[in-house]
Amino acid sequence: MSVFGPDNLPLGVFQYGDQSPRIGAALGDQVIDLTPLELSDTFAEPTLNAFLALGRPAWTSLRAALLELVRTGAVEPHLIPQSAVTMLLPIEVGDYVDFYASEQHATNLGRLFRPDAEPLLPNWKHLPVGYHGRAGTVVASGTDIVRPSGQRKAPDAAAPTYGPSQRLDIEVELGYVVGSPSALGQRVSVDDFREHVYGVVVLNDWSARDIQGWEYVPLGPFLGKSFATSISPWVVSLDALESAAVALPAQDPPVLPYLAGKNLVNYDITFEVRINGDLVSTPPYRDIYWSPAQMLAHMTVNGASVRTGDLYASGTVSGTEQNQLGSLIELTKAGREPITVHGKDYTFLQDGDEVTITAHAGDLGLGEVTGRITPAV
Amino acid sequence: MSVFGPDNLPLGVFQYGDQSPRIGAALGDQVIDLTPLELSDTFAEPTLNAFLALGRPAWTSLRAALLELVRTGAVEPHLIPQSAVTMLLPIEVGDYVDFYASEQHATNLGRLFRPDAEPLLPNWKHLPVGYHGRAGTVVASGTDIVRPSGQRKAPDAAAPTYGPSQRLDIEVELGYVVGSPSALGQRVSVDDFREHVYGVVVLNDWSARDIQGWEYVPLGPFLGKSFATSISPWVVSLDALESAAVALPAQDPPVLPYLAGKNLVNYDITFEVRINGDLVSTPPYRDIYWSPAQMLAHMTVNGASVRTGDLYASGTVSGTEQNQLGSLIELTKAGREPITVHGKDYTFLQDGDEVTITAHAGDLGLGEVTGRITPAV
Repeated sequence: MSVFGPDNLPLGVFQYGDQSPRIGAALGDQVIDLTPLELSDTFAEPTLNAFLALGRPAWTSLRAALLELVRTGAVEPHLIPQSAVTMLLPIEVGDYVDFYASEQHATNLGRLFRPDAEPLLPNWKHLPVGYHGRAGTVVASGTDIVRPSGQRKAPDAAAPTYGPSQRLDIEVELGYVVGSPSALGQRVSVDDFREHVYGVVVLNDWSARDIQGWEYVPLGPFLGKSFATSISPWVVSLDALESAAVALPAQDPPVLPYLAGKNLVNYDITFEVRINGDLVSTPPYRDIYWSPAQMLAHMTVNGASVRTGDLYASGTVSGTEQNQLGSLIELTKAGREPITVHGKDYTFLQDGDEVTITAHAGDLGLGEVTGRITPAV
Repeated sequence: MSVFGPDNLPLGVFQYGDQSPRIGAALGDQVIDLTPLELSDTFAEPTLNAFLALGRPAWTSLRAALLELVRTGAVEPHLIPQSAVTMLLPIEVGDYVDFYASEQHATNLGRLFRPDAEPLLPNWKHLPVGYHGRAGTVVASGTDIVRPSGQRKAPDAAAPTYGPSQRLDIEVELGYVVGSPSALGQRVSVDDFREHVYGVVVLNDWSARDIQGWEYVPLGPFLGKSFATSISPWVVSLDALESAAVALPAQDPPVLPYLAGKNLVNYDITFEVRINGDLVSTPPYRDIYWSPAQMLAHMTVNGASVRTGDLYASGTVSGTEQNQLGSLIELTKAGREPITVHGKDYTFLQDGDEVTITAHAGDLGLGEVTGRITPAV
């Protein structure tokens, strides 16, 4: 279990005994049961969506009120150990969009998937490339991941075969949770990011590379991704994350005006990826090429609306160093150069393996997302 | 308004005066207000989802009961003219998946988007290629379509520009509405198609070809599609459609066992596409390469679950003849060979244009989906 400081107060949905699921805030290794504090009716709901729909002014005032109740100790009668509760999926997901915003990751994947071409495609520095994932298979941290089956074809094979994925992978990502909706036909400006986005989760976009490699032209990834996406249970607010904000790296070539802004930020977050407890990578978020405000502006530039509960993710976070790569396909050069886990050669996920991704921004914890692989059925 | 025979009884959500939205069945040019008939509590809901979640046995028995009430004339006190009601979005959409199941369309698009390569990619006859679309922008027939803006780049330009799409297009499709959910980690067999899918809608997958052409590598279509997808208001049940079922065309090479079945069907449906009232195309559905049962089996072969309200579409329906193509990009050879609409050369959609797609299977009407283009904002 993660430990959360008194200025963080991330929100999540917990179940305690046979009581109804409801909303709590994390404080240290405790959950604050928010319902009896009577701050908002929305805290009795089984997802954060009703709270998220209240919008920025309510988020800010409720956070201030809760910070004060923590400071005065008024929350103490309502603390429950995190070890005594089950954390559920915090949001009912509307649409799930996955971006591809790490230059290092896009370059690495380009080299692996298209070895005979320029790794970074011509559009990549002009727009945050993204696609829609499957919202209905976004699952709570701790949910077992059944090894997916499907079609895959070796480059030299005449025809595809069917069977369990042999190249099951992770993708280390940051997910952004939309609170306030936008209207159909209206763009969201980069300056309105904080009006629409409530906070972040740690996200593992499980990926079956063999399935993905065969299916993905020309319409993009589908079954190689859609079997499961795990998110951390505690949604950390942008307000709490503000101390981790850093300026966005310079973008060259300059972006079109709808993607430009004076106050574009990124977050100085570091992930830690463990397989069966062994640390295998520490991807850094701060140098991601596209800011989350640009992702939101791009996603709505065509008039597409966002809804409360929409989730959009950064894409795999990879740094420049070998021990900063956010997927096994990168860490192992597509399986050709195994890494070492618990003293043994390791390429892709094996049945029974447990992957845990934690994240923090200095002292600010973002919690963890975890999942264990179970055999194909 | 479409006219529906007494054996069809498609379901939709209507609003009459200032009464709450609720569920009705179409009969001729009337709506049967189902709530006072007390067949099911779910008919008082503002979407079909609760009814859909009841599953196949309930769908069948409720249809039998309604057919009998129509036969005896017991519905007559509950008829409201369709002209007096507003039809709303019939379902709350879970995930929206768009397939690419017409061989003729995939071949035509391959030639236009990748002129230097084989038009049909190597995976196309081994699996029904598909991708996730944006569920939150599936809109009711009649909703105005705001011309999307975004990035596009001419092949010979050095950099992309921003502005309203100049190549706004339609895609004529059939949409399948999922009723009964499936469990995460479990495959749905081709034989269980009718247990999970309730019925069909006519679907127009509006497409901005210039935006799509620039953005779509390597992760597939995104903003070129996500601004709007329109569906017809009346969901025609598979039971009603059964009279239109035809054997699936032979598939060569043979498909993998999870896609094979003895009773795979297609539907002998013909679309009529009108722009400002002028008939421009009549795409035939019957020769679509992949059956909807195969699409469902493929979509879940990796263990992805389906939810009540999920919508999956065939992809653009195009026949072999010039007057059977299901998109303007095909009808006009990417704008190079205009068609004639109301006596004038015509390539892509202009502001103010109204597109109406109707569909029928012999005497069985599927109704219509319509939308008018409004200027970019």
